[in-house]
Amino acid sequence: MAALDYHAEERSKAEFDVEEMKIVWAGSRHDYEINDRVARLVASDPVFRKDNRTMLTRKDLFKDTLRKAAHAWKRIIELRLSEDEAYKLRFYVDQPAFTDLHWGMFIPAIKGQGTEEQQEKWLPMAYKMQIIGCYAQTELGHGSNVQGLETTATFDPQTDEFVIHSPTLTSSKWWPGGLGKVSTHAVVYARLITDGKDHGVHGFIVQLRSLDDHSPLPGITVGDIGMKFGSGAYNSMDNGVLRFDHVRIPRNQMLMRDSQVTREGKYMHSDVPTQLVYGTMVNVRQKIVSNASGALSRAVCIATRYSAVRRQFGSQNGGPETQDGIEECRKLCGGHGYLSSSGLPELFAVYAPNCTYEGDNIVLLLQVARFLMKTFSQLGSGKKPVGTTAYMGRAEHLMQCCCEVERAEDWLKPSVILEAFEARAARMSVSCATNLSKFSNPEEGFAELSADLVEAAVAHCQLIVVSKFVEKLQQDIPGKGVKRQLEILCNVYALYLLHKHLGDFVTTGCITPKQGALANEQLRLLYSQVRPNAIALVDAFNYTDHYLGSDLGCYDGNVYQKLYEGAWKDPLNDTDVPDGYHEYIRPILKQHIRTARL
Amino acid sequence: MAALDYHAEERSKAEFDVEEMKIVWAGSRHDYEINDRVARLVASDPVFRKDNRTMLTRKDLFKDTLRKAAHAWKRIIELRLSEDEAYKLRFYVDQPAFTDLHWGMFIPAIKGQGTEEQQEKWLPMAYKMQIIGCYAQTELGHGSNVQGLETTATFDPQTDEFVIHSPTLTSSKWWPGGLGKVSTHAVVYARLITDGKDHGVHGFIVQLRSLDDHSPLPGITVGDIGMKFGSGAYNSMDNGVLRFDHVRIPRNQMLMRDSQVTREGKYMHSDVPTQLVYGTMVNVRQKIVSNASGALSRAVCIATRYSAVRRQFGSQNGGPETQDGIEECRKLCGGHGYLSSSGLPELFAVYAPNCTYEGDNIVLLLQVARFLMKTFSQLGSGKKPVGTTAYMGRAEHLMQCCCEVERAEDWLKPSVILEAFEARAARMSVSCATNLSKFSNPEEGFAELSADLVEAAVAHCQLIVVSKFVEKLQQDIPGKGVKRQLEILCNVYALYLLHKHLGDFVTTGCITPKQGALANEQLRLLYSQVRPNAIALVDAFNYTDHYLGSDLGCYDGNVYQKLYEGAWKDPLNDTDVPDGYHEYIRPILKQHIRTARL
Repeated sequence: MAALDYHAEERSKAEFDVEEMKIVWAGSRHDYEINDRVARLVASDPVFRKDNRTMLTRKDLFKDTLRKAAHAWKRIIELRLSEDEAYKLRFYVDQPAFTDLHWGMFIPAIKGQGTEEQQEKWLPMAYKMQIIGCYAQTELGHGSNVQGLETTATFDPQTDEFVIHSPTLTSSKWWPGGLGKVSTHAVVYARLITDGKDHGVHGFIVQLRSLDDHSPLPGITVGDIGMKFGSGAYNSMDNGVLRFDHVRIPRNQMLMRDSQVTREGKYMHSDVPTQLVYGTMVNVRQKIVSNASGALSRAVCIATRYSAVRRQFGSQNGGPETQDGIEECRKLCGGHGYLSSSGLPELFAVYAPNCTYEGDNIVLLLQVARFLMKTFSQLGSGKKPVGTTAYMGRAEHLMQCCCEVERAEDWLKPSVILEAFEARAARMSVSCATNLSKFSNPEEGFAELSADLVEAAVAHCQLIVVSKFVEKLQQDIPGKGVKRQLEILCNVYALYLLHKHLGDFVTTGCITPKQGALANEQLRLLYSQVRPNAIALVDAFNYTDHYLGSDLGCYDGNVYQKLYEGAWKDPLNDTDVPDGYHEYIRPILKQHIRTARL
Repeated sequence: MAALDYHAEERSKAEFDVEEMKIVWAGSRHDYEINDRVARLVASDPVFRKDNRTMLTRKDLFKDTLRKAAHAWKRIIELRLSEDEAYKLRFYVDQPAFTDLHWGMFIPAIKGQGTEEQQEKWLPMAYKMQIIGCYAQTELGHGSNVQGLETTATFDPQTDEFVIHSPTLTSSKWWPGGLGKVSTHAVVYARLITDGKDHGVHGFIVQLRSLDDHSPLPGITVGDIGMKFGSGAYNSMDNGVLRFDHVRIPRNQMLMRDSQVTREGKYMHSDVPTQLVYGTMVNVRQKIVSNASGALSRAVCIATRYSAVRRQFGSQNGGPETQDGIEECRKLCGGHGYLSSSGLPELFAVYAPNCTYEGDNIVLLLQVARFLMKTFSQLGSGKKPVGTTAYMGRAEHLMQCCCEVERAEDWLKPSVILEAFEARAARMSVSCATNLSKFSNPEEGFAELSADLVEAAVAHCQLIVVSKFVEKLQQDIPGKGVKRQLEILCNVYALYLLHKHLGDFVTTGCITPKQGALANEQLRLLYSQVRPNAIALVDAFNYTDHYLGSDLGCYDGNVYQKLYEGAWKDPLNDTDVPDGYHEYIRPILKQHIRTARL
């Protein structure tokens, strides 16, 4: 019997080579092959099933996570996986766990901030997981504001030790993943104090739990911070709270690559040490972008496949959504997107912290704006901007250039699109800089103009993405129709942004209202070109049904059967008459409620 | 000892009478008093506690809901509450339950669509809850598209009965709240068939479960559809699946106010019957707007209070957020907004279905657009538009009027704001109508231009809200400073929308870019006027800490203490060493993973 495939017709209509597109999406044939092999390995292993995850209690979910982490480690050892393959395996297991922090933050922090001697001592144990570590930076009262941290590490020259201490309630470490119940060690960020002097925040390796019986060491109070968003999602992670009551560690457990404390208690540092604490954070911020792309591609895959089978009113939107839009995808799925079995609620709940966990996006955008203002102010001094701000070197031209679009198809020219985005970004930055210069106190101006500065930063960031996309398309891309599809998507992306931010483009005079209307006309045409390829495009993500975890987004499109069968697995359906009927429903129906014991 | 209040200073700075503002928010002194009394009643009753809700399994959460519903009914009877007070009590219990559907949809459907005889028979039983009912309309394959429903009700003249049947998998009733485990009856929507002829969708009262032992009646397959978004949230509700296998009901259980089937099987109807099925839906849609306001005010209250105590970088935003923005509020709270104890995840998960459960907003906006196009097309015929489209009667003026703003403060004039919003809405509608007229097939044009039509509908809806707000402020509003605060908020709302949709206003020529910049300048000034009043403004919602359910939003602002203490209540913290340590963590640390049984 031929396998059922409700998407077969859509798939046959694709105008490009899906297999070649999979390689483009993965980055290289090598990456594609690793991804494909590891994803199948995970999907076929019953220990890694995740379809019952939302029905587990917190305790059972956490135990299930420990089991998966142990099994993953066992498979990594048995199959002698490389570091890259091991990372991919954890990725496809798709359940946040303490191992993410051990490999993703604890080890990198030691590598980045430890001396060679420290690395030689700690890394072999960490690589073998003889110790498990996390990254204890944020505090109850202090998130991304590293300089506000209150935990102290005071040098005691008598014993050659640091005394780690939590002086206030708000200094409690709060949020670090893997901290609550699993980690035996942590890189702890604390204010270094020698001889009464505060040298700012530094990292220290601190053992938290006994390696014999896992009990917290004396002076350590550690636990889980409780339930988070979603039913499964990040509740598999033991985000933790940690307090120190004068915990002593040897001097050589301060991470001393960039600053040192000598036996005598003298503080010495190489250069710009305060910046270095951010190293691990910046690394994580890069991953956030990749997480965004991953989570969004899953949501788009689910929404696109479901749209194609959905009966209601026919498909309203077959084109991929290019904004940070999981919630949009959920809404596109109508009511069924609200069911756990759609996979979207979990995805939303898992992805949501990406918007905050390295500081609210607004904070980051303001940092971008600060950089833009600085770059602009240096233009006069003859310093030539490079990299993502190179276009500012042409500010004079961009301030007065006119968009040459006369017909809708003119909007297909990469040079036209790029110039419009460059002019918009430049003009918004210049306008902010001009307004800022009116304030005698620049910080006051920065606060007052923050909304405009954020918008200028957004314009700059969008220009970067559009220009990188255009740049990629200058290369040769093999495979029938592959490059053509990517060109369409690039234009869709750029013109969608242009339409969404039309006010920016028109009020800065970068384009006329008429040109905006032509862009919109071209955008509609592009959508109609994407539609027949939508299913094949999301197939190119090469996600297994296990990884997607969605009845709505299943490869074969047999959506309604899966939803219907899935419903009966809910524990509430174990019995026809629900638990609680005799105590709470029958007394209502039988008019006995006044005398009922509830 | 004086009670701790971290917001005391903010509260003392308020420039208006908070008690009077509470009455404005509630709608009247009478409503305020009922709300206040009932909210306190609920908050002080230990049965209604909800702080442990996210830790319960689905089964326990559901049983807890049954208990609360029974207890609520008991209190309603004991205290002889009016229907209005009973509604408020359920509202403040704040846990979705079958009673919402019984009172909110089952009873209204019978009242609206039943004959007097039918009402006399069924309503007394329903009012006493001798029967419990729900509203079974949507199907697995068909949501808001009522005309696509597949369930059939075939008249059998031999027995004077209807035969209710589910002919396909997609015809399974799917989603109705209260259906899965509780309801004994349902108003079921099915295609009426007499003598082989399909008369479209009609409502039927169908008994689902035995009143003796609650077991499903023969031919009925009924159950819960499984986990939904969030950990608590709508998982307290038994949204259900229902299939009929030739279930027979007496002829007089068809709701016959507007259409009848005679003993002989003759179908008769009064007028426009197909419209009437929508009656209950329209009623629910009105409630959605009020739900939106309720949910958003809670989120704003939480975000505003937390912002005021938050240390990080100082408060970034003390002004109320006026968009559909719970997720925005969560992000404003930084990482802690992701904790269940913030109350925001629950609120988001509970509110999310409002965006879809009467059809995706886009579908509704397209209906609005259709209405606008119809109104516009009738202008020529001399038919004078009334109500929310009255402004279209002045279309000629609105097409060519010029905004007179010269200085930022000109944007404070209600007439200036109104004309800008009217002109924008009118011009966007006219532009759509012009483009539509170019299509020979209007439906094709409607599909092709749907994105523009949605934007025109949004512009119209925003005009309605702004104009109603302005209208309200024409009245006398007592209380020191109350009216002044509302005027500021009205201007903030209007100018925020104007800034957000600046592209609309400028490209249609309603305002110049310069006037847009002045509006933004005025908006910044207004924000600074709101800030000192922010805490007092959210106090005016008069929400109890019980109802808010948020450590971050607690009245006294003692946020960090509450978060810290709350963490230790998580079941994961019952033991220092977690369940699973011996099986899954120790083998890793001790390098025994290869031989471990996992």
